[in-house]
Amino acid sequence: MEEDILKPGERIDDLHRNNYKIIQNTNKFCFGMDAVLLSGFARVLQGERVLDLGTGTGIIPILLEAKTEGRHFTGLEIQEESADMARRSVALNKLEDKVDIVIGDIKEASSIFELASFDVVTSNPPYMNHNHGIVNPRESKAIARHEILCTLEDVIREAGKLLRPGGRFYLVHRPFRLVEIMNTLSTYKLEPKRMKLVYPYVDKEPNMVLLECIKGAKSMIKVEAPLIVYKEQGVYTDEIYEIYGY
Amino acid sequence: MEEDILKPGERIDDLHRNNYKIIQNTNKFCFGMDAVLLSGFARVLQGERVLDLGTGTGIIPILLEAKTEGRHFTGLEIQEESADMARRSVALNKLEDKVDIVIGDIKEASSIFELASFDVVTSNPPYMNHNHGIVNPRESKAIARHEILCTLEDVIREAGKLLRPGGRFYLVHRPFRLVEIMNTLSTYKLEPKRMKLVYPYVDKEPNMVLLECIKGAKSMIKVEAPLIVYKEQGVYTDEIYEIYGY
Repeated sequence: MEEDILKPGERIDDLHRNNYKIIQNTNKFCFGMDAVLLSGFARVLQGERVLDLGTGTGIIPILLEAKTEGRHFTGLEIQEESADMARRSVALNKLEDKVDIVIGDIKEASSIFELASFDVVTSNPPYMNHNHGIVNPRESKAIARHEILCTLEDVIREAGKLLRPGGRFYLVHRPFRLVEIMNTLSTYKLEPKRMKLVYPYVDKEPNMVLLECIKGAKSMIKVEAPLIVYKEQGVYTDEIYEIYGY
Repeated sequence: MEEDILKPGERIDDLHRNNYKIIQNTNKFCFGMDAVLLSGFARVLQGERVLDLGTGTGIIPILLEAKTEGRHFTGLEIQEESADMARRSVALNKLEDKVDIVIGDIKEASSIFELASFDVVTSNPPYMNHNHGIVNPRESKAIARHEILCTLEDVIREAGKLLRPGGRFYLVHRPFRLVEIMNTLSTYKLEPKRMKLVYPYVDKEPNMVLLECIKGAKSMIKVEAPLIVYKEQGVYTDEIYEIYGY
């Protein structure tokens, strides 16, 4: 029985792609729309090698394996409990040959993997950089959401070291940090080349930004059409249904 | 007669604000939606002093005088012919006490005006930085559209010098240069604090970006709801009609 692989508090969710499933624990951390939109925004070409920095339950490598012709996908995760869930999801989907989950620290990613060895790096990193007032900084949700164990600069610096020249970095983040994001990307020669803002409604502020950066490229960005999430309350736009694969 | 103040090829257009009018010459350069949207996006508070860098026919100071409680508005323009049209528009609207048109070079703006003497600086600068293939680089349309006489960095550097600490810089530009724009603004301590992307249609790429920057502020930007120009072909959205004052 599938349920035999679950630990207390865990459940299995359907990913609507290749019949893939994912193990999550609502008391710890469940993937959000951010990860799904990033996996729809990222381009992975046939035969490419992909690394996901801070993979959590492995949602991004599993979705990218389903959606693309990439050759191999690695997820790096510092929290053993999340990595363990991710590995069981990989096994549940019989993806052991295509997806590796590695336990390790983003800050040291360039000493864990070979330099310039990936075609694509993805990340849905912690968004919040004001960590005062966090009740329990060892709690897994806090670590996934706040820059407790790594900063934006750590993620960008390591992505830059691990990408081959011309390789692509895909990032989802919050728009309020856009200036800092762009400045830091430029510092590490990951030139932002494509950007999409995600607006919950057509008349509301965006709450996510998706970026494609190319290592060593010249400065010139294509800002794409807006991605609007809801047509009306509770009703997704067609674009969102398509990305989710319903 | 109003027409007595016109030179050959010129015409008078209605601005739909305070019965103000503007003199333009379709063979030279007419203001675009960019200038109108910038004047709707910029915030000028009661008593503030405003400088517009590269004012052309004076559209931005004239519209801002109509829309805000600012105390005084200066337009700097290097092309004598445009500045002359702008001055006649100022006279036509009887704004000589509120609006000055100064002939001069943006690159030297900080030696023309007193340092840190403005509360607000605005600019709708030339957008294009690839100037090869321009048939006549002395033609007024080419000067307004291409970085022939000044670069983006010149505009940002001079704005930074002329603003008081905490003063605000408003810029309209093309999204394809957004990374360069943000990096240059950061270099000159004009922190982007508010951004609005202008999309011609809800499903199309944006063709303008509006930015509010605050001199010396900390990094944190508010990206606003999208500004959509057309509801359907030939029909503006309500927001556009409101900005135009119809």
